[in-house]
Amino acid sequence: MTTDALLTRLRAALGDGGVHVDPDITAGYRRDMMPLAPFGDPLAVVFPESTGQVQEVVRACAEHGVPIVPRGAGSGLSGAANAVDGCVVLVTTRMNRIVEIDADNRLAVVEPGVVNLDLRGAVEEHGLFYPPDPSSYDWCTIGGNLATNAGGLCCVKYGVTTDSVLGLDVVLADGELLRTGRRTVKGVAGYDLTKLFVGSEGTLGVITRATVALRPLPQAPGTVVAAFGTTAAAGTAVSRIVREGVVPSLMEIMDSVSIAAVEAHLKTELGAGGGCAALLLCQSDSGGEAARAELAKIEQICLDAGAELAHTTFDIAEGQLLLTARRAVLMALEVYGAWLTDDVCVPRTRITELIDACERISAEVGLRVAVVGHAGDGNMHPTIVYDPASEDEFTRARRAFADILDAGLALGGTVTGEHGVGKVKREWLAREIGPVGLRTHRAIKAALDPGNLFNLGSMFDPDPA
Amino acid sequence: MTTDALLTRLRAALGDGGVHVDPDITAGYRRDMMPLAPFGDPLAVVFPESTGQVQEVVRACAEHGVPIVPRGAGSGLSGAANAVDGCVVLVTTRMNRIVEIDADNRLAVVEPGVVNLDLRGAVEEHGLFYPPDPSSYDWCTIGGNLATNAGGLCCVKYGVTTDSVLGLDVVLADGELLRTGRRTVKGVAGYDLTKLFVGSEGTLGVITRATVALRPLPQAPGTVVAAFGTTAAAGTAVSRIVREGVVPSLMEIMDSVSIAAVEAHLKTELGAGGGCAALLLCQSDSGGEAARAELAKIEQICLDAGAELAHTTFDIAEGQLLLTARRAVLMALEVYGAWLTDDVCVPRTRITELIDACERISAEVGLRVAVVGHAGDGNMHPTIVYDPASEDEFTRARRAFADILDAGLALGGTVTGEHGVGKVKREWLAREIGPVGLRTHRAIKAALDPGNLFNLGSMFDPDPA
Repeated sequence: MTTDALLTRLRAALGDGGVHVDPDITAGYRRDMMPLAPFGDPLAVVFPESTGQVQEVVRACAEHGVPIVPRGAGSGLSGAANAVDGCVVLVTTRMNRIVEIDADNRLAVVEPGVVNLDLRGAVEEHGLFYPPDPSSYDWCTIGGNLATNAGGLCCVKYGVTTDSVLGLDVVLADGELLRTGRRTVKGVAGYDLTKLFVGSEGTLGVITRATVALRPLPQAPGTVVAAFGTTAAAGTAVSRIVREGVVPSLMEIMDSVSIAAVEAHLKTELGAGGGCAALLLCQSDSGGEAARAELAKIEQICLDAGAELAHTTFDIAEGQLLLTARRAVLMALEVYGAWLTDDVCVPRTRITELIDACERISAEVGLRVAVVGHAGDGNMHPTIVYDPASEDEFTRARRAFADILDAGLALGGTVTGEHGVGKVKREWLAREIGPVGLRTHRAIKAALDPGNLFNLGSMFDPDPA
Repeated sequence: MTTDALLTRLRAALGDGGVHVDPDITAGYRRDMMPLAPFGDPLAVVFPESTGQVQEVVRACAEHGVPIVPRGAGSGLSGAANAVDGCVVLVTTRMNRIVEIDADNRLAVVEPGVVNLDLRGAVEEHGLFYPPDPSSYDWCTIGGNLATNAGGLCCVKYGVTTDSVLGLDVVLADGELLRTGRRTVKGVAGYDLTKLFVGSEGTLGVITRATVALRPLPQAPGTVVAAFGTTAAAGTAVSRIVREGVVPSLMEIMDSVSIAAVEAHLKTELGAGGGCAALLLCQSDSGGEAARAELAKIEQICLDAGAELAHTTFDIAEGQLLLTARRAVLMALEVYGAWLTDDVCVPRTRITELIDACERISAEVGLRVAVVGHAGDGNMHPTIVYDPASEDEFTRARRAFADILDAGLALGGTVTGEHGVGKVKREWLAREIGPVGLRTHRAIKAALDPGNLFNLGSMFDPDPA
């Protein structure tokens, strides 16, 4: 039987410990953290430990016509790593070596299974900084970060994952190894294949190594927290900070629903007082006089915009606590039910309108919607809370999820700022990029993966009816 | 006759004033600034004034099987805009409107024919900054900057063109209009087509509009100039500045040949004294205490590395003068003959080795080679001076050009840091990216431009033997 032949070949290449078919094990690799995306049952889950083994898996699956779904830690929020029936899930977590840290040239070479936090820690010992910091940074892998072009809280000053990548090793659909990019800071030899693969969500190849650019480790940050009586006032503050040319190292917003949830969860006051509609959290890591000047300017802008309270601190612990509160929103919401987090990015001037739209949608569907987000980028994560045991609430949550995307598009935004399209926003991608955009995507997919080996069903349907 | 039919159609679409066939006129559009690249005689040179007119040109040429070479100002240094025999050169200089400056969202929408300096000036009035600053910034166009992913002096702090682009309008080979990217700061909906077209040298489509991200206008810069007795000492200083985590807004190096040429040309002393092997020019635009701290650190590192002289100034005019001297190198070399400027980028720790290799190559070919470059990025422009009337000198110049690329590759570098591959480094691209890389390039080209309509002969041969 052909399946047996494939498994035999995979075991020969990876060893018995590298190939799992026991449903008790494979069930854990069927899906990521996005509850709305479809998923199937994999034929096998494999754990290659080298580029050579990835090539073996790719060649074997290609010959047997078995699709491959690449996967990192499974922290994704778009279903991009969700299995399809009968696929091989290729998990990169055992390829977790930091191959090299070249401090003099400020770069590192890593395998895809390295956990984001581990890379951050390793380079910090050299006084260096790897900026991308998605919320799951303590367990997500660099491979997943590359596949989704992950963002995080740092982006307002330091950009997203693609801005930190110099080159990649990618196993293509024919099993050949493609090397993109270079070890130099600049380079324009050929098409920018590196940035084509970053964010391609595992649909074009399997990344087996990355050369990433590092920055000097920033100074310990100072923090401003400001509480606003209306979302409009908070939105005005964000726009003015951008307009005034202040570039904080972090600028996060939390709405009243998020604030209340976190205060209950952490049993602490965020200093927002009662009736606070929005909290703005800004940091500067510029150090010294520069940081003081930036934060003073931000505090003043917040007060001018109508903040009821604004407070600046250079106390590291206090700043950390405020950041912990921001990062705790999703967990805090779990008291009320399951959460479904959305991801839209709008022009920075239109954050208020998005928050207001979420409030309206919340009322319409009768579900709690908490809005948190990276205000400095306009990248918001409205999060819908629902009872997972109620089919009706789940249906309403889905509706809210879609309505929020509608609102984002109507405000001139995009349907995904950093989580990706995956298997949950395919129709939305088509709407956003239009028929010519979709045709161009299909042409590139057909050029690089003509047999549709990689991550079928993610992003878009490669073969239109 | 089919040519007449095409010209008739082009004139109908663009008007008589938009289509030129007079050889006296078309001759000026045969080539860019790279003397080594081949060029041919165009059938016609056309000047569309709108995206719709570009679409008309593309459809007409596609139907008649006549290749198109897109072209901006012609300031390129790789022959990417050089005509091929019988082609239509599509010049974008009449599409030169700054469509929109959205200061609140820090972005601008521009047509490809806008001159870099004009965009810089227009956004500066809003307190904003468009960073990419290739040496030809006072006459090159944004379209050309996008096509080559142009760099400049700013890159060490602000990155290259691709880092400032949010979205593009591109006319594809079938005449359809593709919109890539978005107006938001972040976004991961689909493949990063924007960054695929940036740097594709006109081989995949014609960019007719770009949305670019702007930054806050930096502070007036302070400047450090340091003179070194050996290139090794200068190289050590560069490495240490990078290693210490100082990020200047500019870090340029000039070797002794460049210094002598500029001093003669400007009839001024650069403060380098006699026997100076290298001059390092650094700026900080961080303002206030931050700039003072950065420049003090740089000055101290230079002195520790063995600089014979280091001088810091916050005088704007003096800083400007030093920058003018750096920018004058190519013009200064014209006293000695024609120049041929190369473009290699090496890891920042290996600049000294590259300069030394250039000195060796200069001796071997018996021609003057001046090395200037963006030291902070490792992106060097060794410039060979030769007598254009001497076939022998031209041959030796070509050899030096190639030997410098060899040296760059051997040092772990790339054959082009910012000028591009064009029609002069095709063989070098193939060497650098290897057969799998080349195959991948061809697959993408075939997917987006199956009829090889755009810029045939640039970058790589799309149809291998």
